[in-house]
Amino acid sequence: MSASISRRRLLGWTGAGAAVAGVGAVSGYALGRTEPDPAQEPGGDVVEFRGTHQAGIVTPSQNELYFTALDLTSTGKAAVQRMLAQWTSAAERMTRGLETAENGALPLDRETAPADTGEALELPPSSLTVTVGFGPTFFDKLGITDRRPATLADLPSFQGDRLEPAKSGGDICIQACANDPQVAVHAVRNLVRIGFGTVAVRWAQLGYGRTSSTSIRQPTARNLFGFKDGTNNLKAEEPDLLDQHVWVQGGDGPDWMTGGTHLVARRIRMHIETWDRAPLDEQEAVIGRTKGTGSPLGGTGEFEPANYRSIDANGTPVIPLNSHIRLASAESMNGIKILRRGFNFVAGSDDRGHLNAGLFFVCFVRNPQTQFVPMQRLLAANDAMSDYITHTGSAVFACPPGLREGEYWGQRLLEDTV
Amino acid sequence: MSASISRRRLLGWTGAGAAVAGVGAVSGYALGRTEPDPAQEPGGDVVEFRGTHQAGIVTPSQNELYFTALDLTSTGKAAVQRMLAQWTSAAERMTRGLETAENGALPLDRETAPADTGEALELPPSSLTVTVGFGPTFFDKLGITDRRPATLADLPSFQGDRLEPAKSGGDICIQACANDPQVAVHAVRNLVRIGFGTVAVRWAQLGYGRTSSTSIRQPTARNLFGFKDGTNNLKAEEPDLLDQHVWVQGGDGPDWMTGGTHLVARRIRMHIETWDRAPLDEQEAVIGRTKGTGSPLGGTGEFEPANYRSIDANGTPVIPLNSHIRLASAESMNGIKILRRGFNFVAGSDDRGHLNAGLFFVCFVRNPQTQFVPMQRLLAANDAMSDYITHTGSAVFACPPGLREGEYWGQRLLEDTV
Repeated sequence: MSASISRRRLLGWTGAGAAVAGVGAVSGYALGRTEPDPAQEPGGDVVEFRGTHQAGIVTPSQNELYFTALDLTSTGKAAVQRMLAQWTSAAERMTRGLETAENGALPLDRETAPADTGEALELPPSSLTVTVGFGPTFFDKLGITDRRPATLADLPSFQGDRLEPAKSGGDICIQACANDPQVAVHAVRNLVRIGFGTVAVRWAQLGYGRTSSTSIRQPTARNLFGFKDGTNNLKAEEPDLLDQHVWVQGGDGPDWMTGGTHLVARRIRMHIETWDRAPLDEQEAVIGRTKGTGSPLGGTGEFEPANYRSIDANGTPVIPLNSHIRLASAESMNGIKILRRGFNFVAGSDDRGHLNAGLFFVCFVRNPQTQFVPMQRLLAANDAMSDYITHTGSAVFACPPGLREGEYWGQRLLEDTV
Repeated sequence: MSASISRRRLLGWTGAGAAVAGVGAVSGYALGRTEPDPAQEPGGDVVEFRGTHQAGIVTPSQNELYFTALDLTSTGKAAVQRMLAQWTSAAERMTRGLETAENGALPLDRETAPADTGEALELPPSSLTVTVGFGPTFFDKLGITDRRPATLADLPSFQGDRLEPAKSGGDICIQACANDPQVAVHAVRNLVRIGFGTVAVRWAQLGYGRTSSTSIRQPTARNLFGFKDGTNNLKAEEPDLLDQHVWVQGGDGPDWMTGGTHLVARRIRMHIETWDRAPLDEQEAVIGRTKGTGSPLGGTGEFEPANYRSIDANGTPVIPLNSHIRLASAESMNGIKILRRGFNFVAGSDDRGHLNAGLFFVCFVRNPQTQFVPMQRLLAANDAMSDYITHTGSAVFACPPGLREGEYWGQRLLEDTV
């Protein structure tokens, strides 16, 4: 039995009690046992599951995403509560590298189906985070429309949208992020199993290669246009800005959302083949940054502030008026900022042999109506990048705050109304 | 500029000459410059591009796959030769962490489209391998049917097959494997670009989570049924068995294939939801191994030989007659062995909300007609696993041998016929 095999086994079979009793802040395998140093184990990190805010939002972005939107197949509130409580328990265990339940993959009663599907046995926690949100329809279906935040409403149509209804919307979302896709897919698959009879998958999306890093500790990664994406993103290290732009504050809406946020997902198909034929000059003019260092046009360093007033000898703005970074900037947006946390995707090729690929855009905002909606209206109407992209999926969810010890997802929302 | 940024830059801008002049066996960044120790850089490894055999076959399996089958859109042999020569040059550079061409992503003439799409800038080589094969139709379309090996023929229909023609077959395949999906996708995308006008993508497949390790140095990974997959696989450390079962030997067929092999790809949809409802006993009886350690039923260790003659007190075989490992074993197969190198896949959910997931099975064999075909016939008709899987895609390709210094893919095949 190799070291990598023995680890999860130890956690699963002898460490389970300690893990359940432990508080959220578990660093690596430091559960009071002698375990390898997680700093030397790629993927060995455990992200704290409980806290003021849900994990997977300002957590340094992992490399892999599996995102699922589900619809309620039962509108019995008790069944939904039971499922959410089971999800919470299973997700908390999985973020520690454990099976969904003790002896989950290998039940002692061999004539029962395993509770855990088993494909993540032996794999380290891989910084798994599981983040849950509720769509506008969740409240209608459960008859609790009065509990829906005013900030949570269907997004309007934007110019150029070509949304596929079957890949948009949803009553509940699960965002699983990890540094190993097997771990992220395993998490969602097992939560979906737990929810059988209460929810069914509406659509799902696999993503890879984080864009828009959420921590100053992470270098900015590149999207499929080959450009650094998210240089000016909000960062975990900016708590005041996060309170201003991301976290729902007391008084914003219903109490159950305080400390929560809203997740907006947009599946953005990139017209890769068209982009790849564009000259470097055109590509940089569309983005507003250089392709090499990612510096704003006219600047020399990635994190140098863009000078939107700079003009060349012909009086032409150095950063074009319809460039993406200019239009998306807080300067153009009356101070609006959003926390982006998107991933690249590639889903093979379409029937013309073109790459079915792009950006699965995810952002977190305090109020979609006053942040994402005006930003996307401006971009959809003016962004030079619009010639190279099409939005094909869209969804919005209210993400409750982080969980206290013993609390389950949605408890404050659902139990106050009993 | 961070250390991770500077590395590829150094390689791309100052190291290109050294890299092009170097012989294949490049370990990490040891190109005569002062570079970080690749052993301390996750993903920093360079896999030798040239050699007796193509890389990506007995190379220890990477974690991520991007596989593409292409059709010829031009049947001019000169155009195909030119493309294959350009592919070879670009692939050799990319396996070293370089752009497809010098200044590829950032052309000095800014009014031209970049030769390299740029999204892998700054990323380490990530053990990228690129493996190329030719389908049966390749020979017909180029008018060189006389050069086609007799071993390369369309696979017959197998019981239970539900093949999608648009996701089967192809004139040429590119298998890109790496430990970072961005690196694997980048490689294929850029080769497809180079081939524009000569080839077009027919279908593509993203895979993750290696199954069937190809080296004794790798622990056996699990497939989406939660079982260790490929315990009895052929291994890189067994050269005599590889010569017997994988590598085409002199006299087997046309000289240009000596040292080559055949790639069989099968897209196997797993009926995850059905499987997940099966009791542990049933699951283990289907596979013939325990789910925990992966030992053969009745045994205690993963690599213990299966005892197919063992019966229990009732006279029932301990390893069922229709179990997967019994039917696929060399004992059942008159000594046939194959080198498996498959990956898990998940492509969201189908219109019933079921996971569209499974195993993208890839194997390499000396002769598909005498190895894969009889094995799959036996399995398709008898394997207990057939209740839980459906083959939805199929393709076969002849992979030429490894490349000598200066040689391009297919050169021995195409130039001898001039």
